[in-house]
Amino acid sequence: MDPIAELITTYFELNGSTIDELDGSGIEPSPLDFMRYVARNTPFVVRRGAASWPAVRNWSVPFLRNALAEHVVNVAVTPNGYADAPTPGPEGKIVFAKPWEENQLFTDFLDCVTQQEKNQLDATAETRYAQTQNDNLRHEYASVFSDVHKDIPFARIALQRSPEAINLWIGNSHSVTAMHRDNYENIYVQVLGRKHFVLLPSLCQPCVNEQPLEQYSYVRADDNFQLVPETADGGAQGHDGDDGTVPFALWDPDVPLKNETPYSTLAEPMRVTLDPGDMLYLPAMWYAASRVVQFSRRQYLTVH
Amino acid sequence: MDPIAELITTYFELNGSTIDELDGSGIEPSPLDFMRYVARNTPFVVRRGAASWPAVRNWSVPFLRNALAEHVVNVAVTPNGYADAPTPGPEGKIVFAKPWEENQLFTDFLDCVTQQEKNQLDATAETRYAQTQNDNLRHEYASVFSDVHKDIPFARIALQRSPEAINLWIGNSHSVTAMHRDNYENIYVQVLGRKHFVLLPSLCQPCVNEQPLEQYSYVRADDNFQLVPETADGGAQGHDGDDGTVPFALWDPDVPLKNETPYSTLAEPMRVTLDPGDMLYLPAMWYAASRVVQFSRRQYLTVH
Repeated sequence: MDPIAELITTYFELNGSTIDELDGSGIEPSPLDFMRYVARNTPFVVRRGAASWPAVRNWSVPFLRNALAEHVVNVAVTPNGYADAPTPGPEGKIVFAKPWEENQLFTDFLDCVTQQEKNQLDATAETRYAQTQNDNLRHEYASVFSDVHKDIPFARIALQRSPEAINLWIGNSHSVTAMHRDNYENIYVQVLGRKHFVLLPSLCQPCVNEQPLEQYSYVRADDNFQLVPETADGGAQGHDGDDGTVPFALWDPDVPLKNETPYSTLAEPMRVTLDPGDMLYLPAMWYAASRVVQFSRRQYLTVH
Repeated sequence: MDPIAELITTYFELNGSTIDELDGSGIEPSPLDFMRYVARNTPFVVRRGAASWPAVRNWSVPFLRNALAEHVVNVAVTPNGYADAPTPGPEGKIVFAKPWEENQLFTDFLDCVTQQEKNQLDATAETRYAQTQNDNLRHEYASVFSDVHKDIPFARIALQRSPEAINLWIGNSHSVTAMHRDNYENIYVQVLGRKHFVLLPSLCQPCVNEQPLEQYSYVRADDNFQLVPETADGGAQGHDGDDGTVPFALWDPDVPLKNETPYSTLAEPMRVTLDPGDMLYLPAMWYAASRVVQFSRRQYLTVH
């Protein structure tokens, strides 16, 4: 048997693909509990683990509109909701498409996001997603930071470090996060709405059809968007190739017969849907894709 | 660059090859401290971590002779000290040589081990090593088990299980443990004498020249030993191949230009010498070889 196929098959025989669920009604895992999952590089979800956070209890569109009334925020704009995702480029080949970034009054941004969800914008409208990953909840959104815990004690104690970045992401169901992976440990907290995750362990690398993609960015041009190549020194992603490309998965477990590799059929994705207050531990180097599955009162927010 | 070479080189750039030393004078690591090392699959040594154990404080040849006076123990016998090691077989090819096993009065065994060390036996004398790995300290040597801690609390709490096996090994400087690996977490405690370990992480597999070796056993024949093939169903090793062979490392980091692979030169072995009372955490799947480097009062014992 092909040793790569045997490795992947054996992994799923031994580990299954069902995520461990801890009942977190007021009780978080201990640092040692958490470290056992880190040691096994295995995700878990803590149902209601953040249920007591003021953000989970209090946030709503009117609340945020009021709290961030005068704020200008950075917004990622795409014609289709696919930011930082593989996209057909100008010459038909698949490229890595970064969003167009705009600064916008937070209240205007909130109107765009909620109106699109309510179908008050026409179907071709651009998609807006507040998705900066530069520790925005301690900077751009600092005025609402006090509504979330300043760190996750079980993770801080176990890993012996404070979070490098705390990010707030706000979008609607048109925003999709393509399958990707990061080289840091991640605790994701759902604040409003429901989000569905599809997860694969890092040893599924042979399944996901990672290809070196040239980096392009959307640029607003009149009423449209153009994809233009990044300049050679423009890429800030840590894992860029020397040639400016970025390795990115083309296979989507939810579209399994497109862009598949001979190993894709062996992957058994772990799936989990988060409700408000749920916490997800996403281990370093796991692949994750996510999409919104349901709105609560036409509003959708995530705190990460 | 060859990706395997890059992996090995990067590992040692990031991790170095110096073992972490905790000063354990009365203080063991916490379960969380330990779990961090398990998560990183990284060895550490706790100097004097077992210094307070009655075995470390009290054991000596006279003490054990008295405590185990009437006991019969299982002893591994080889003509050269290499038990469970690659050895030239009858037709010149390298085979995996298992020792001849004998039951012997413990006091007679102790005489053989100490007299060989004192050069009171001729140079061609066989080597005896009490090295059963069947939880012998809770069975064969149960009468002295009370002199060691019944488990290692930081490991039991972190791993949520009691030790599967607690083994006592007794030998002299003629016994060598060839480079091998086990698929379980291991805490090694030195009781008497000094032992030197050479360790390699599991990703050095391409460096150690693992080959499928046919399994042979020493059989006593008159005044000599013969190596005879194992019967097909005789092998009890868990990782035997279907054909009865066992994969075993042929490269020895201390003889680096013999049996090397193109990757051997990239390996940076971690070396540590244990004194009585020292504890070593040897992570699952690490390669380890060990040899005695010094005797305390012409006696040598290890508790594992």
